[in-house]
Amino acid sequence: MDRRLTTLISVDDAVDLLARTLSGAVSLEPEEVRVLEAVGRIIAEPVETEIDIPPFNRSAVDGYAVHADDTVNASVYNPVELVLKGVLTPSDKPPSECVEPGEAVRVHTGSPIPCGADAVVMDEDVEVKDGSIIVYKPVSPGQNISRRGEDFAKGDVIIARGTILNPVHIGVISSIGVDRVKVYRRLRIGVLTSGNEVCEPGIDRDCDTLIYNSSARLITALLRQSRFIDVKYYGVFPDDPEILSDAVVEASMENDLVVTTGGTGISEGDALIDAMLNTGKIVFRGVKMRPGRPTTLSLINNKPVLHLSGYPVAAWTGYEAILIPAVRKWLGLKGLERLVVYARLSRRIPNTVGYRSYIRVILRDAGGEYVAEPYMLRGSGVLSSLLKSHGYIVVPENVEGVEKDSVVPVYLLI
Amino acid sequence: MDRRLTTLISVDDAVDLLARTLSGAVSLEPEEVRVLEAVGRIIAEPVETEIDIPPFNRSAVDGYAVHADDTVNASVYNPVELVLKGVLTPSDKPPSECVEPGEAVRVHTGSPIPCGADAVVMDEDVEVKDGSIIVYKPVSPGQNISRRGEDFAKGDVIIARGTILNPVHIGVISSIGVDRVKVYRRLRIGVLTSGNEVCEPGIDRDCDTLIYNSSARLITALLRQSRFIDVKYYGVFPDDPEILSDAVVEASMENDLVVTTGGTGISEGDALIDAMLNTGKIVFRGVKMRPGRPTTLSLINNKPVLHLSGYPVAAWTGYEAILIPAVRKWLGLKGLERLVVYARLSRRIPNTVGYRSYIRVILRDAGGEYVAEPYMLRGSGVLSSLLKSHGYIVVPENVEGVEKDSVVPVYLLI
Repeated sequence: MDRRLTTLISVDDAVDLLARTLSGAVSLEPEEVRVLEAVGRIIAEPVETEIDIPPFNRSAVDGYAVHADDTVNASVYNPVELVLKGVLTPSDKPPSECVEPGEAVRVHTGSPIPCGADAVVMDEDVEVKDGSIIVYKPVSPGQNISRRGEDFAKGDVIIARGTILNPVHIGVISSIGVDRVKVYRRLRIGVLTSGNEVCEPGIDRDCDTLIYNSSARLITALLRQSRFIDVKYYGVFPDDPEILSDAVVEASMENDLVVTTGGTGISEGDALIDAMLNTGKIVFRGVKMRPGRPTTLSLINNKPVLHLSGYPVAAWTGYEAILIPAVRKWLGLKGLERLVVYARLSRRIPNTVGYRSYIRVILRDAGGEYVAEPYMLRGSGVLSSLLKSHGYIVVPENVEGVEKDSVVPVYLLI
Repeated sequence: MDRRLTTLISVDDAVDLLARTLSGAVSLEPEEVRVLEAVGRIIAEPVETEIDIPPFNRSAVDGYAVHADDTVNASVYNPVELVLKGVLTPSDKPPSECVEPGEAVRVHTGSPIPCGADAVVMDEDVEVKDGSIIVYKPVSPGQNISRRGEDFAKGDVIIARGTILNPVHIGVISSIGVDRVKVYRRLRIGVLTSGNEVCEPGIDRDCDTLIYNSSARLITALLRQSRFIDVKYYGVFPDDPEILSDAVVEASMENDLVVTTGGTGISEGDALIDAMLNTGKIVFRGVKMRPGRPTTLSLINNKPVLHLSGYPVAAWTGYEAILIPAVRKWLGLKGLERLVVYARLSRRIPNTVGYRSYIRVILRDAGGEYVAEPYMLRGSGVLSSLLKSHGYIVVPENVEGVEKDSVVPVYLLI
């Protein structure tokens, strides 16, 4: 095992290896939860509808349900008079009595369409007289009607396995009368950090290095945003192989995956890498990406341990470029993608061929288009750069840079 | 009081009125929480830093700390040799010994810059010989150094009041050694729905209307996404003024704000509006927007009650266009804005002058630009349209429509 970062692998291979390791080590059993408690959880089996939505033909507008045939020749010069036969509100059920030719029934948006009627004339194309309506415009069969099953038809899969449930999904599942769904149990992730010089806010009152733990806390907070993850935060441990090894073993027993920050750089002590070599095995050591090059994966008790850099931005890149894509790949997730906008690059971004670079950018609204200004090309420790940037650009491995004025996809933060 | 939707007010006035009502009725006392538990909460007082970040000058690259003066004439034709005096790692503190002219100290990204040195020569511009380095390129004073306080300077406000804390904020607050922050207590919102024909999934086993409650559940799930809100879901109540009045009074006592769905349309029974008129007072009845025109605000026990349409998309529009902007305005929130992309409109959108319209769109990636395809211009009941659309366009009150091929901002969903 070369601990010196000479056998770096590609980002794609790193994602693959972590996904495969998770798949081999972790089984997320499904559990049943109330739909209203399921926001942000991952659906474990497809949700099918057993009813049609809408359950019967309904009006899509406020107007009058008619026989379309009656209106074929209707115009301002040839108005058609129809006899008004009652009202149907959206809370009415479809009546048994049918509309006969020459008749019309008042309907609102959502009202059932009575049998016989096959179109709805809109309010603005009608004049109301006592007991009848005058139609000035023809309607074609089906016009202004939401057909039974048009929204969802009986038997349709409306939510696919792997979907992360958002509020609209919750509404849709409720609309088909379903109140309990099978979701995967939460993924348990433990987070800890190593570093003699790192102080823990609130615990180390006298921090003479003035370096407070932010990376592991950033990663913890990022993971806590996902409601399908249970995060346990273990805090800071000194650079001592034995202590670190014990800490990681404990965390690995209590979790499906352990994430560490710090102790991965070649300029840092080898305590963490030593701990992993003594207790488990290294799967990969270093990734061809910037920042985040020293990102490392090891196995302890057959549980994956992902080692991120101690520098906040490099740790964040490991989370964004490897951890999340690997979880997405492993579970076939739908709904964890970053939103993308296109933007014109304000200046050239250089790249080292062979490396995939993640470049933070500030977006400026240039009226109808965005301009992306690369921000802090260096400084993987500079947390404020994540605070101030709006998104990031990915520069692929096979290019020497991206030219000024290129239009590039920007992945939006938050 | 005209219950017939003839005195509609503008969206902006509706937002104002709800914001002012909330401000008069509700006081969100601050509470102290651990930073790691504060994701998604609203910061109640500005967070200032008492230390500089970085706490001392640090190297921004891997290289050698030098006197910039020594390198002024360095080039490939005129290499400059400097004596190597030790190594500083990122976990070292700034040493007391200074670098003298003619000397260099090995540093890594994050290492402290020793006194005397005022620039860092990067690895690629240097050749290492035993005990010394050969420099081929000049550096200017300050080059490749992150200056003390450059990220955040002592006394800086790093998080403004009203900020909704995201993971990066959590990292930043931790990095200045702060572990507890003051956030507003959670806003308590009760949600209920009215409608004789509406069944509750999981409770009403035999639903012969086949209309299940989705709007109130959609709104509940939307609100549950915000971690600064505590949502209590009360379920479905029949269209009976007395029962509805009791339900709303109970919900208003247990919450800061009550949100109802259903019973607001002119074609629906007046039970809900009657209940409000009997028990409290109506603040506004109807808003000049589409969908969501019947959106109504009342006051019960001096607590605001926002009445949204029973149609899912119209209810959603009331949430998006009135409820969220009013809460944002009331609390001065930062961080609740929708992300915006620009897109070219695939066809004309008509508008009724005087109304603000919210048009769902599907975005297609046309290589470097987005095309927005209006989706389901009608049908405020069609929940699948929210599932299938990617965002929405706002058509202002003062236009008759938006032309095909216009480039418009699209507010992204989720």
